[in-house]
Amino acid sequence: MTVLPFVADLPLVDHHCHGLVTAELDRVGFEEMLTEADTVSPLGTTVFESLIGLAVRRWCAPVLGLPTRAPADDYLARRAELGADEVNRRFLRATGITDFLIDGGFQPDRLTTTKQLAGLANARAHDIVRLEVVAEDVIRGGTTASGFADALTAELARRAAGAAGVKSIAAYRVGLALSGARPSAAEVAEAVGRWLAKVDTGEEVRLVDEVLHRFLIWTAIDLRLPVQLHVGYGDSDVDLHRCDPLLLTDLLRATRVSGVPILLLHNYPFHRNAAYLAQVFEHVFVDVGLATHNTGYRSSAVIAETLELVPFGKFLFSTDAFGLAELYHLGTLFFRRGLSEFLEAGLEADEWSEEDALRTASLACFENARRVYRLAE
Amino acid sequence: MTVLPFVADLPLVDHHCHGLVTAELDRVGFEEMLTEADTVSPLGTTVFESLIGLAVRRWCAPVLGLPTRAPADDYLARRAELGADEVNRRFLRATGITDFLIDGGFQPDRLTTTKQLAGLANARAHDIVRLEVVAEDVIRGGTTASGFADALTAELARRAAGAAGVKSIAAYRVGLALSGARPSAAEVAEAVGRWLAKVDTGEEVRLVDEVLHRFLIWTAIDLRLPVQLHVGYGDSDVDLHRCDPLLLTDLLRATRVSGVPILLLHNYPFHRNAAYLAQVFEHVFVDVGLATHNTGYRSSAVIAETLELVPFGKFLFSTDAFGLAELYHLGTLFFRRGLSEFLEAGLEADEWSEEDALRTASLACFENARRVYRLAE
Amino acid sequence: MTVLPFVADLPLVDHHCHGLVTAELDRVGFEEMLTEADTVSPLGTTVFESLIGLAVRRWCAPVLGLPTRAPADDYLARRAELGADEVNRRFLRATGITDFLIDGGFQPDRLTTTKQLAGLANARAHDIVRLEVVAEDVIRGGTTASGFADALTAELARRAAGAAGVKSIAAYRVGLALSGARPSAAEVAEAVGRWLAKVDTGEEVRLVDEVLHRFLIWTAIDLRLPVQLHVGYGDSDVDLHRCDPLLLTDLLRATRVSGVPILLLHNYPFHRNAAYLAQVFEHVFVDVGLATHNTGYRSSAVIAETLELVPFGKFLFSTDAFGLAELYHLGTLFFRRGLSEFLEAGLEADEWSEEDALRTASLACFENARRVYRLAE
Repeated sequence: MTVLPFVADLPLVDHHCHGLVTAELDRVGFEEMLTEADTVSPLGTTVFESLIGLAVRRWCAPVLGLPTRAPADDYLARRAELGADEVNRRFLRATGITDFLIDGGFQPDRLTTTKQLAGLANARAHDIVRLEVVAEDVIRGGTTASGFADALTAELARRAAGAAGVKSIAAYRVGLALSGARPSAAEVAEAVGRWLAKVDTGEEVRLVDEVLHRFLIWTAIDLRLPVQLHVGYGDSDVDLHRCDPLLLTDLLRATRVSGVPILLLHNYPFHRNAAYLAQVFEHVFVDVGLATHNTGYRSSAVIAETLELVPFGKFLFSTDAFGLAELYHLGTLFFRRGLSEFLEAGLEADEWSEEDALRTASLACFENARRVYRLAE
Repeated sequence: MTVLPFVADLPLVDHHCHGLVTAELDRVGFEEMLTEADTVSPLGTTVFESLIGLAVRRWCAPVLGLPTRAPADDYLARRAELGADEVNRRFLRATGITDFLIDGGFQPDRLTTTKQLAGLANARAHDIVRLEVVAEDVIRGGTTASGFADALTAELARRAAGAAGVKSIAAYRVGLALSGARPSAAEVAEAVGRWLAKVDTGEEVRLVDEVLHRFLIWTAIDLRLPVQLHVGYGDSDVDLHRCDPLLLTDLLRATRVSGVPILLLHNYPFHRNAAYLAQVFEHVFVDVGLATHNTGYRSSAVIAETLELVPFGKFLFSTDAFGLAELYHLGTLFFRRGLSEFLEAGLEADEWSEEDALRTASLACFENARRVYRLAE
Repeated sequence: MTVLPFVADLPLVDHHCHGLVTAELDRVGFEEMLTEADTVSPLGTTVFESLIGLAVRRWCAPVLGLPTRAPADDYLARRAELGADEVNRRFLRATGITDFLIDGGFQPDRLTTTKQLAGLANARAHDIVRLEVVAEDVIRGGTTASGFADALTAELARRAAGAAGVKSIAAYRVGLALSGARPSAAEVAEAVGRWLAKVDTGEEVRLVDEVLHRFLIWTAIDLRLPVQLHVGYGDSDVDLHRCDPLLLTDLLRATRVSGVPILLLHNYPFHRNAAYLAQVFEHVFVDVGLATHNTGYRSSAVIAETLELVPFGKFLFSTDAFGLAELYHLGTLFFRRGLSEFLEAGLEADEWSEEDALRTASLACFENARRVYRLAE
């Protein structure tokens, strides 16, 4: 893997990622976390027989002191031998990531906290507050249909005080065809009333309501918090055809005057659509996290497609690593390579200078994220 | 065309294909069968001026003993001189296909039968039963609204007894936005009642009913028959925007516990979407048949895009050749090349070993199909 | 940038483009016209940091007598020094375009007329009549609900008399999910009645009515005028998810018997979908204008993807340049390069002969456009 030296050396801000599993994993447990599949298919073959699986053997094995392309079972034996703590530390410290923006809203009991991850990585880590978790906690804490809006706003302001931004998983719950209209107080109260009624019947507290997901986003915008949106690629819970970022057009049109950044996460396989939105809406930013490590060797193509339309000042790095430290390693490595191949192709064709290439890489690797999230250098 | 030797030599299982025209074809007749266009456009130029047209002159001409890139008229004269039988035999035997899984449900009067094709190819051929044909035959045979379900189940079990699997063309009739719910007996009876009423008024017996297409798929699953679904690319009869495989998400979610394989055919230009489904749903498999020969020289890009997310244990070979033996030749040739280029790029970049590459190729060429359809070696 | 000599030398027919700004532009004014963004994002960085921005510095600077990759401010200073007239002349005359088909329907007060552009370019220029402008002018001129259809038909016939074709911007107003049915006289009268009622209340005269956009298209077809349709990529006014060309399937199916050419413009990021339509519908043609210059160095990939399915007799060149003469230069340059790279890859792989390649290039560069629009050589 040849990476332009100046791309290899740049610091990275990972603007969307998660904690790591601290328990030891057997082979099935590892395969279950490697891709977006819930489990290993009894009809198919091992997850190691996929682009990301081959990449683990090729690129992660040496970090654990194994030969390149060690067999999967050897890899897992060595992983167990070193222990999750040492494995996590090795991979995280090899990334060159200076800042981790961590969404801790999913499976928090199983994963390292923001502080623990910072320690393992010997780097800075910042919280991203998951909007739906705040809303659900406010419901659990006890509120009324008419009192919810104020309670939520106060609680969000409190939790976001030291955070870098917020994230919405509306995509997972109702899809991205959100209205552009700011919900009225009456609409919010009515929606909360419906929700409370369901909770009263014993239903799990789980937000699934287009009005309220939208209300959360508008509340965050009012608080001037950068808003991350899950878009596109995810696990089998997502209805991917409802997660095309273009479905957000009305909402983006309505929120552009706010000047609050909206960050479209993942986007694959709709990354060209997302790039278009980042070109035409001033406040829209994009990444191709999650896809970068999952598409392995092919991530260069995905990155290049994304860069067709997106202004370079609007493109960010993220791993969306979750659970396995290998995903940090691969996400970082393939991002640097994809960016490098894109830039090198242009250098070879005399399309731009090395100075242009370095500037482009710096924007994507850290400058854009620092500007958007107001991070210190 | 350079193909890695081990990819060139692997046997192939063509898990979705059709019979061949036995009549002689004039130039217009040939062009009309070469792509998904119904006819030669009077506003455009010859179909030979397209990627697949150039590929016929380049790759098929030598098989008929002509110089590379013989003009189209010379090609058709030579084809007529040899006769369809000899032409079919030559192309089929050059493919290296050991097993043909043949959907004989479209234009059967015009095409070779399964047995005839096996003879021409000197290989094994297996039937794929088209679900809609069975349903229409049951209606034609005389049934009642309440009797249809049992009659259909019995008839499908009978016809599928020696078959490798079944196929649904719901995509062509109602699109792929099928509900995930198993239709109740009452819903089926009601739908059949509507259908019978139309037939009684003299309408052609033609299934176009979301409930019944869905019922057929569930019936096949109950019989534990692998289910092929037409997805994406097809002729001008298809509403392509209703054929995105992501529209199947609910149905796939509902059927995954069955453990019965569902095979998404063609998928182009939604092949990345299909690959995603194959990653997250245990029972989903994909191919890029039909697109492989139609996109000619570019099929390597289509194959590489598909392999981004699909586990290699879930990717199958098919030609979807229909009518013209050239399509078997080109579908085979471009599949081997696309796979080879994908694997060779990784070998050159030291992403995987030759052993990994051979294993990946074996899965795609024949192993996955043998496992899914329980074919003998 | 290496371009095959025979591709570099071919004349071009630009079948969809616009006039140029004659006023001098400051840096912000220039950046605002460079992409589909309305303005420079205060949250991002300069538009010069994007593929098209780098391309301006690389490829346009030398045309103005500056060193390759002159800084953006130097570029704008030099541009101002030469004056818009000289700048426009230099870029236009460098293109090799013999015929410009100009849609003058947007911001006509700001742009050169068809005649002026012909003079600047020293080439032929032809009018494309924007259907919605004619309809709005007929309303402004005073008509009745029942009299509109005849008045529109007469006015369209009059304006289109010397024109090359017409264009619909239904995509911008109602999206592309147009019904396939020809609207009845009663439906048209009713829709016009609704429109007139709105105008009577003082609303701006602006056509936004699915029935009437569709009526305009059918009227043009009756007059046997080639119909251009905006598809896909555009500015922030467009709802891109309503602009997938596949949504036109019903209308294309209904109009194919007319034999009147329908030309799908831009299409990005749905260009593969558009190519499919051009394969299966006899009267459908496609281009990737607008995307060609916006995706800069990556336009070769976009062109190659489009050429997968489209018969070469159905693929056209356009720049969709608007306002800035640089867009003519870049659109031309990247089209020739993308086409050349596509053809050269096939030559190197021995997929086709140089004669085949020249023929393919000639079709795309000028022959298809001349045939479709009946232009003189």
